[in-house]
Amino acid sequence: MAYINVPEGVPGIRSLAMFRPETGKYLYDLAQVLLRGPSPLTEAEREMIATFVSHRNNCKFCTGSHAAAARCLLGDEAQLMDNVLSDYQSAAISDKMKALLTIAGKVQILGKEVRQADIDFARSLGATDLDIHDTVLIAATFSMFNRYVDGLASLTPENDDDYVEMGKRLAEKGYSVPHPQAVNN
Amino acid sequence: MAYINVPEGVPGIRSLAMFRPETGKYLYDLAQVLLRGPSPLTEAEREMIATFVSHRNNCKFCTGSHAAAARCLLGDEAQLMDNVLSDYQSAAISDKMKALLTIAGKVQILGKEVRQADIDFARSLGATDLDIHDTVLIAATFSMFNRYVDGLASLTPENDDDYVEMGKRLAEKGYSVPHPQAVNN
Repeated sequence: MAYINVPEGVPGIRSLAMFRPETGKYLYDLAQVLLRGPSPLTEAEREMIATFVSHRNNCKFCTGSHAAAARCLLGDEAQLMDNVLSDYQSAAISDKMKALLTIAGKVQILGKEVRQADIDFARSLGATDLDIHDTVLIAATFSMFNRYVDGLASLTPENDDDYVEMGKRLAEKGYSVPHPQAVNN
Repeated sequence: MAYINVPEGVPGIRSLAMFRPETGKYLYDLAQVLLRGPSPLTEAEREMIATFVSHRNNCKFCTGSHAAAARCLLGDEAQLMDNVLSDYQSAAISDKMKALLTIAGKVQILGKEVRQADIDFARSLGATDLDIHDTVLIAATFSMFNRYVDGLASLTPENDDDYVEMGKRLAEKGYSVPHPQAVNN
């Protein structure tokens, strides 16, 4: 049971956006532009960064749903998502992406953990200003979403299977704010 | 120097919103509705929660600017802001506000730190669902802003005086996204 009176049976942040649509609207708009809008990072890469941070924040709901979205976007390479979570340095992703995940991991701890050397290293592997910006903002944004979802104890489905449909919807339709009355949507 | 090529001389999140207006827009909209929109918490109380979390995240820019905004909104009671930062349990704020700050402090650590007992205690002192929701979301949102501002090493004015004008503007005009070209605004 969530700590506040959100619509029953609606998982995670959707239930919170339905409880408080005034803020929910901008949270969904932010997720949509950040994870699906124009960026030098692919949608799959952005979902991987979001999942990586959520996993380190021990947020089961965000980890499950965004990992599922990343797997859909990765298609035949879906296994990469799990490899990144278990050991990103040995995963078959680009060196630039590894350097960006290192930055994301530092943002997850605290902003000041990111050092000039981390930025220089990412740049030496081809990262641009926009790559670095989007990585830091995705990591910061999920440090918010994770705290919001767990700080109010919103509904977190238990089984991995529960996240498959969620991931498919996020991969195909992106982030659109739930209508306050559309409990089952 | 910020880690990315933001407009020179523009402090903190304003410079980041000018670099990336696509996301900046929603970040400012979120701050405006959360800190200035309808809520059972006063604007001063909401700025105090934002400052309290930013202080714990060691974010000098957000602490300085939001403390200055809170002092403006508090008027004759401006000293309360500093008392809350040094020891909120002995500050002359309501018991309900103390219980909400305890929740905010736990969200700053991680969402799962918030327990049913914290919620029950806040409710026993008069906190409603909306009080609790807005407290958790403000604490989560500043866990994002703090990481964004410091993770990209955006310009952080050194002197406390530099924040007075900023606080006055935030108290009087709220949060409006800077125009990408309006470097000095």
